[in-house]
Amino acid sequence: MPVLKEVPAEAQVISHRLMLRSGMIRQQASGVYSWLPFGLRALQNIIKVITRNMSKVGSLEMLMPCIQPASLWLESGRFENYGKEMLKFQDRHDNTLLFGPTNEDMITDVFRHNIQSYKDLPKNLYHIQWKFRDEIRPRFGVMRAREFLMKDAYSFDIDQAGAHKSYNQMYLAYLQTFHDMGLHVIPVVADSGVIGGDLSHEFHILAEHGESTIFYDKRFLHLSASKSLNMEEVGSLYAVAEEKHDFNNGNFLEDEIASSKSIEIGHIFYIGTKYSKAMKAVVNDSNGNLVPVEMCSYGIGISRLVAAIIEANHDEKGIIWPSSVAPFTVSILNLNMSDDKCNELSKILYDQLLASDVSVLYDDTEERAGSKFATHDLIGSPYQLIIGSKKGASDIVEVKNRKTGKIEELDINLVMKLFLND
Amino acid sequence: MPVLKEVPAEAQVISHRLMLRSGMIRQQASGVYSWLPFGLRALQNIIKVITRNMSKVGSLEMLMPCIQPASLWLESGRFENYGKEMLKFQDRHDNTLLFGPTNEDMITDVFRHNIQSYKDLPKNLYHIQWKFRDEIRPRFGVMRAREFLMKDAYSFDIDQAGAHKSYNQMYLAYLQTFHDMGLHVIPVVADSGVIGGDLSHEFHILAEHGESTIFYDKRFLHLSASKSLNMEEVGSLYAVAEEKHDFNNGNFLEDEIASSKSIEIGHIFYIGTKYSKAMKAVVNDSNGNLVPVEMCSYGIGISRLVAAIIEANHDEKGIIWPSSVAPFTVSILNLNMSDDKCNELSKILYDQLLASDVSVLYDDTEERAGSKFATHDLIGSPYQLIIGSKKGASDIVEVKNRKTGKIEELDINLVMKLFLND
Repeated sequence: MPVLKEVPAEAQVISHRLMLRSGMIRQQASGVYSWLPFGLRALQNIIKVITRNMSKVGSLEMLMPCIQPASLWLESGRFENYGKEMLKFQDRHDNTLLFGPTNEDMITDVFRHNIQSYKDLPKNLYHIQWKFRDEIRPRFGVMRAREFLMKDAYSFDIDQAGAHKSYNQMYLAYLQTFHDMGLHVIPVVADSGVIGGDLSHEFHILAEHGESTIFYDKRFLHLSASKSLNMEEVGSLYAVAEEKHDFNNGNFLEDEIASSKSIEIGHIFYIGTKYSKAMKAVVNDSNGNLVPVEMCSYGIGISRLVAAIIEANHDEKGIIWPSSVAPFTVSILNLNMSDDKCNELSKILYDQLLASDVSVLYDDTEERAGSKFATHDLIGSPYQLIIGSKKGASDIVEVKNRKTGKIEELDINLVMKLFLND
Repeated sequence: MPVLKEVPAEAQVISHRLMLRSGMIRQQASGVYSWLPFGLRALQNIIKVITRNMSKVGSLEMLMPCIQPASLWLESGRFENYGKEMLKFQDRHDNTLLFGPTNEDMITDVFRHNIQSYKDLPKNLYHIQWKFRDEIRPRFGVMRAREFLMKDAYSFDIDQAGAHKSYNQMYLAYLQTFHDMGLHVIPVVADSGVIGGDLSHEFHILAEHGESTIFYDKRFLHLSASKSLNMEEVGSLYAVAEEKHDFNNGNFLEDEIASSKSIEIGHIFYIGTKYSKAMKAVVNDSNGNLVPVEMCSYGIGISRLVAAIIEANHDEKGIIWPSSVAPFTVSILNLNMSDDKCNELSKILYDQLLASDVSVLYDDTEERAGSKFATHDLIGSPYQLIIGSKKGASDIVEVKNRKTGKIEELDINLVMKLFLND
């Protein structure tokens, strides 16, 4: 974890600065990043929250390759439409390939070769894979990168009623997923762009330096992320992406509506039969007729989420991770490495927390106390266990809550209980 | 899990046939595959075994991108050497990029920007990422694919003695890793090819249709994969790759040596300073001198391993998964879906196994008994729980061991105990 004390000059937004300073990422080419161990842990924890929620709604995990043949995109009619953002190339036999920017075409191909009957529907499949979009101006670190990690899910239904049911189920699963990450998300009505279809929602979080602008009912601001989600309440409030907003065409009063900069972290599309018709993904319905399958697609920008979570959870000292995605739940700061008692106490805590599956980082470096405080405020573990700040204290540990800054002095046994019941 | 009854005509080797028949993969382009849910589970279980063993020896997980800038390869001097197997292309700004076939160059870049002192050594980092090698003739399914998943680790030491220690530690970790997957592996002395360096071992399993040939001490055949590994014994026996073998130049008698077709599943290299010198990855030693860091690299072909494990573990009916990597440990075959008692018993078993974190597949289709037997022998769960084969039996479950074929009749409570203590 190579921590920087200086603020990197090239980073314009706070999340990018904090990710570089805490040693989470390293840029390898414009918009292409390595994830160092600390950063990868955040990415993996976000993946855990997503897979748990996908599994709950019966979505099955699979994995499509990074490389796609141009032939599938020619078949769906999207090959030319996608423009310069698509990275195309020839292999040694002069076949045209591309680095997948999204997977509607390929999943339609997988579907048509494996499913022929309405009896096997509905079906919901997802994968988590690196995508590439050759952005003309990559920026803000992993927020607008070229190679990025996306979870994309696809649902298949026999008719429109079924597809709407699938869409709504995933809409709710997305609210729950972002809620589980400690994010205060606003689902907004959106355009469906290059994916196609006529119903679409984006999921946004408010952020000072966000690239999007949304208009939303002010009551969203009082729906706290910490209380359990009220799905009905969320779904009934007005919220739209900028291009969809019209003050003269909505069931609201103007002063009930706020507008803010925001970051898009998820996007769902009711696609219909655009791909299934073009690529002949047809199934037998209960009357024995061949009908094109009704599709929806659902994306979450996983690598971008790391930045978005930091934009929404930081202070002037550094990151404040929500527990569910924190690379480490606990940092142990041993301030007195020359004291046997401090070393013993730190080691006992470390071993016991590890054995209890609490993710813990033990700072046993020779750095001074001030430097250790600064480092651990920067990397933002929800809890810091501070050992050795007071001379002569035996089994007392200072427990600092990173978010509130509050410090409690607790006996070591009480500390262990605290985390085992967490 | 789209299971095929017919043998696919295009598949030449048994693992490819079984992977297609059991719905594990679908080819999307020559040597490029989608992993369907059943196949992905095997891949993920292999990853678990690998990460557990990497973690045990203190290797830290990170993640480098698929796309690499040509500049790093020009700097290391490998850009032209790699030849047509490297997939190169231009982005929209005419920068030359490539889809990484391996990561020595990039990890050296990450290292030199983050580590400057011998105090931070030794260091061992690994990542699990999709690679691409544009093979002239991809074949045998995922065994020789173009896009493939590899675990590659890299160690960094201040001197040769340290690097040899790291090399030996990973050599043993590899033996343990393959052993944990139920594989009977033979480590052979090998050439280091395009990676460079002067010490190298490959890890092979014997397989009738393997593409490699190895020469090895016949005593390897008696070192069973099921008993615990005797590291010293393994390390002292003669075993070399074909190109390294010389009957006139070894400490053995000719009739002690066998030769077999085999599959390479891992490869480790003592690299030395090839990359650190070319790319100026230097560190301060304890005397304050700048010295190039000593490197080794360590690869495991994860997607190829799925095929290799099947080559080594199958019979005429299908796959016989080793427990540690089985997509499902248990298959429940309900043979009488119209019987309330059978449905209840099956559901109780399914729910209790799930709740106990046993990975279980419940076959509640309307297929006939013979078809269910064939399907589950094909997909190879280590245990089949057969419900409803005998009229009037109440709480009796037939437990079939896929490997031995033996069937025991057990009370449901005994069945649960069996798996909870497993």
